[in-house]
Amino acid sequence: MVKSITCTALPDLPLVEPGADLVEIIVDGVARAGIGVGGGDIFVIAQKIVSKAENRYVDLDEVKPSPQAREWAAIVGKDPRHVEVVLSESNGVVRARRNVMIVEHRLGFVMANAGIDESNVAQDGGHRVLLLPENPEASCARLKRGLDRRFGADVGVIVNDSFGRPFRNGVVGVALGCAGIPALESRIGAPDLFGRPMQVTEIAVADELAAAASLVMGQAAEGQPVVHVRGYSSPAPRLDAAALIRPRERDMFR
Amino acid sequence: MVKSITCTALPDLPLVEPGADLVEIIVDGVARAGIGVGGGDIFVIAQKIVSKAENRYVDLDEVKPSPQAREWAAIVGKDPRHVEVVLSESNGVVRARRNVMIVEHRLGFVMANAGIDESNVAQDGGHRVLLLPENPEASCARLKRGLDRRFGADVGVIVNDSFGRPFRNGVVGVALGCAGIPALESRIGAPDLFGRPMQVTEIAVADELAAAASLVMGQAAEGQPVVHVRGYSSPAPRLDAAALIRPRERDMFR
Repeated sequence: MVKSITCTALPDLPLVEPGADLVEIIVDGVARAGIGVGGGDIFVIAQKIVSKAENRYVDLDEVKPSPQAREWAAIVGKDPRHVEVVLSESNGVVRARRNVMIVEHRLGFVMANAGIDESNVAQDGGHRVLLLPENPEASCARLKRGLDRRFGADVGVIVNDSFGRPFRNGVVGVALGCAGIPALESRIGAPDLFGRPMQVTEIAVADELAAAASLVMGQAAEGQPVVHVRGYSSPAPRLDAAALIRPRERDMFR
Repeated sequence: MVKSITCTALPDLPLVEPGADLVEIIVDGVARAGIGVGGGDIFVIAQKIVSKAENRYVDLDEVKPSPQAREWAAIVGKDPRHVEVVLSESNGVVRARRNVMIVEHRLGFVMANAGIDESNVAQDGGHRVLLLPENPEASCARLKRGLDRRFGADVGVIVNDSFGRPFRNGVVGVALGCAGIPALESRIGAPDLFGRPMQVTEIAVADELAAAASLVMGQAAEGQPVVHVRGYSSPAPRLDAAALIRPRERDMFR
């Protein structure tokens, strides 16, 4: 039973440039924070710095929009080159209207603009946008290997982002990828307080952890893109964040 | 800037009966946990115990299902009396199929079964179900007044529940009501790291807090229905959880 969870931002992280070693950046940040890392601790890492470290920039000046991208751009009122990049990262458009373009990302996430935005991307005179990591799940596994080695502990890793959602206003933190934790915890058949089988089935643990960390990360100028989480534990088996994606054919809202 | 957030379950809370004084239950739990409560601390309280304290039970043996309820019951495969209670708490059915009935609750939440389930409801030989609180926002305001007075501090209160959602598997904690916090924090126009206006607009802070607390609450048999949150702060103005509900006419997924 979890008694207490603490989410702590790693202080004073440097701006992340392509090729940066996030493991070393995290190790330094942990030292500054004065945290002793142990087994079961979880690092939640903002998508943006993982994408930057992986150099997922695209220069819009080098993008030639397709006729299809021009059509969508007219509907949503965005730069056709930007829309071209969104489409190139997507399986298809789920909903679109002025200022809103919700797509199914090639990895299955239903999200605005395929996760591509222009905030917190340095311009360098050019016009760059930043894609999601090529494979956030693989990024997590790689970061976990590095962090496990450096800390001598079995840690968890989540790469998170903020998604809007149907029915409710505001964005919330969600997990794009994870390693070393149960992304989804099944309680099928677990007895309730009175011994009957429960009706609630699965808890999106990685999304709840992503949301908790997001409260500490803040946004933009506040910039605390790595959060250390202590205290969460679960008897559930480890499961990748892919388990959080509901297949289209099982979704009642598409 | 938030540096660290700690979510702590209040230990060994008693089972809540109708008429129970949740303020006193929380005060006792805080004492057992050895927590000193200060201004800005937030209590996240599971919907279920608020509903129980407010005696929101309905005895299905006293429910006479309407023809409409019988029709839906045949579709979803539930007890027509249960469906009758769900419909009586709802503005309408959003999606239904075998084992799934998603409605717009009379308070605007789009959720399964109007938040009514039968887990963790003692049977007493009868067949009782438990509705959401009559007015979770008012429950929060009332609890806040009591807790503020007992602790001599300006605290926040959230009543949370777990919702399923489109596109993603698993349930996550969400806020049904809140008091003393900004349910939604607007970052419209806040400059990003490079000084340009941000694109992300609003953060569903109360839902993220509800999700964080949910990790500590566990479900069912674990039963830790009150979580104390320390460390969150925001310059944003206080805002009720009603701000989290997207009006139907502004929702692209209905």
